[in-house]
Amino acid sequence: MSKYWSDGIADLETYVPGEQPQDKKYIKLNTNENPYPPSPKVIQAIKNAADENLRLYPDPSCEKLCDTIARYYGVTKEEVFVGNGSDEVLAFSFAAFFDHDQPVLYPDVTYSFYPVYTNFFKLQSKTIELEEDFSIPVEKFFTPNGGIIICNPNAPTSRYLSIPEIRRLLDYNLAIERVVIVDEAYIDFGGQSIVGLIDAYPNLLVVQTLSKSRSLAGLRVGFAVGHRDLIEGLNRVKSSINSYTLDRLALFGAIEAFGDEEYFQATREKIIQTRNRVTHELRAIGFRVFESTANFIFISHSSIHAGELYAKLKENRVLVRYFRKPRIDNYLRVSIGTDDEMGTFVEVISRIVKSGA
Amino acid sequence: MSKYWSDGIADLETYVPGEQPQDKKYIKLNTNENPYPPSPKVIQAIKNAADENLRLYPDPSCEKLCDTIARYYGVTKEEVFVGNGSDEVLAFSFAAFFDHDQPVLYPDVTYSFYPVYTNFFKLQSKTIELEEDFSIPVEKFFTPNGGIIICNPNAPTSRYLSIPEIRRLLDYNLAIERVVIVDEAYIDFGGQSIVGLIDAYPNLLVVQTLSKSRSLAGLRVGFAVGHRDLIEGLNRVKSSINSYTLDRLALFGAIEAFGDEEYFQATREKIIQTRNRVTHELRAIGFRVFESTANFIFISHSSIHAGELYAKLKENRVLVRYFRKPRIDNYLRVSIGTDDEMGTFVEVISRIVKSGA
Repeated sequence: MSKYWSDGIADLETYVPGEQPQDKKYIKLNTNENPYPPSPKVIQAIKNAADENLRLYPDPSCEKLCDTIARYYGVTKEEVFVGNGSDEVLAFSFAAFFDHDQPVLYPDVTYSFYPVYTNFFKLQSKTIELEEDFSIPVEKFFTPNGGIIICNPNAPTSRYLSIPEIRRLLDYNLAIERVVIVDEAYIDFGGQSIVGLIDAYPNLLVVQTLSKSRSLAGLRVGFAVGHRDLIEGLNRVKSSINSYTLDRLALFGAIEAFGDEEYFQATREKIIQTRNRVTHELRAIGFRVFESTANFIFISHSSIHAGELYAKLKENRVLVRYFRKPRIDNYLRVSIGTDDEMGTFVEVISRIVKSGA
Repeated sequence: MSKYWSDGIADLETYVPGEQPQDKKYIKLNTNENPYPPSPKVIQAIKNAADENLRLYPDPSCEKLCDTIARYYGVTKEEVFVGNGSDEVLAFSFAAFFDHDQPVLYPDVTYSFYPVYTNFFKLQSKTIELEEDFSIPVEKFFTPNGGIIICNPNAPTSRYLSIPEIRRLLDYNLAIERVVIVDEAYIDFGGQSIVGLIDAYPNLLVVQTLSKSRSLAGLRVGFAVGHRDLIEGLNRVKSSINSYTLDRLALFGAIEAFGDEEYFQATREKIIQTRNRVTHELRAIGFRVFESTANFIFISHSSIHAGELYAKLKENRVLVRYFRKPRIDNYLRVSIGTDDEMGTFVEVISRIVKSGA
């Protein structure tokens, strides 16, 4: 607390990212990073872009990258916005679209940055209680609102909402003229993107990231696809904060990431297969494991508490994410690593379960 | 305008950056970029950092870079904040420190992003009229305020305010418990930084950038130095928007930029010498040229209007910055390029002046 802070700064509930240990001693399954490196073509493109032109500002409109993403998804470049990671895109979206007179709706268990944005931009919010199995009860959202945001598949629960269900949210909010943001950070690991519906729904904004399925958490690139009016709203917010949020290297790297489709498909396929195998193995030793369409699983054991599992895994140099929060304090979120890493994980957690039983 | 925008989004007066032509046909003297490339060591560091670790998030606290900057300026790393260009750092500062009950003060002629931030964060503002010669009348700031921001040397005027004069602002605002932000984007081209006074003034925040004097506009790195309470305020805002604003490549490149002091000194020395020579040559052909401590000059001609000069220079493939704004609509801001570029500039503008006289 400082007398030099603006009103409200002391009360901010800021986001706390997962641990980023600077040493290498952990098998790191705690921040949903991709265990596989980015495409070699991306790395080469960045090396090539590291030249004397770094003295020049990047293109503030990021036109080539927007165009690349537009062609990839079959939309126009005026329907694409890019930002410094999907977190920045989401922050700008909360500022651009959510109405101040009604509460913003999101599930009670979801990405923990949503209440942070709500708080920072002085919005009201109302959380919608998920079912016991963490599925999303769509009809509970049918209430006057200042906007809806859902993460699909949801984090940290890994539960997926089908497109017909999301359409019900879109239809409801179309009638009351409010935006629905679908945060698809994890969509490439088995879900179906709703991006094809932006023509039908001018109130739909789809947000994605290159951090997960394209192995580029370290490059900070996220994007949104939606009606050109929504994209213009995002550009207005961006141009009120920082004209150049993506550096030249990120722009070149991101373009190349959409160029290497073969690598992208192979990588996500490997993760899906590993996830399915681990799900099976964990169930065999007494874990509840939700069906996941993400690059992580959400698990709970019948006899050992998640807090204890987290601590014992850490002792054994395996880092997973444990949220000390209502409803989910007996669950662990485990990112899917390589086959080797997950082999070790299953081995270690089996040992913990046996000795604890 | 869209019915899906939040209140206020339609009224935002967004920042418009200088033209960034994507072809190479201009001598580009319009966005204060450095004409010399970044240090070869920076480029090498980035190439080295372009590896498989891009799959991992960067360090959200940017500790190594903060530590590097801290050692460079003789402060502690808790007194340093880094962001995605000084524009982002400034935006976060407006959110973190400026009081909503009193107007924020800044000169009527200054960096045009300040009113944009004011507007976006719903602050009040009051502009302080500069003298006819664009010098800053310090005593006019001695009025109740929600904070003060000055750019030193000021943009686009190039005028420099001495440290004893800035201390008067700091003393006044210390008494009323308000922050003074000194935006030193151009300080390395001949001014003296006030960063040494952060211990004496807990209300002083100094903001700098790597875009100008370190030739890294394309890498997007800026920073602030101030009392640790101010730095904590900035971190609270950052952690409400985006935990990772600097990618891994920018972090590695920026650290190296502070490591190559010899290159830094040589580059800024060249720009200072070119600027002084061009100032002399322009005065000889009838230009008013303010004494500059920046990497640009602010000029006006007695007989040809700046708007006409701008257009004719552009026809001749020389791009400078012309602001169609009250008080400065008969001035041009000209970034200092290489000796060759400035030779061409002086040659072209001399021809225009002769034919127009």
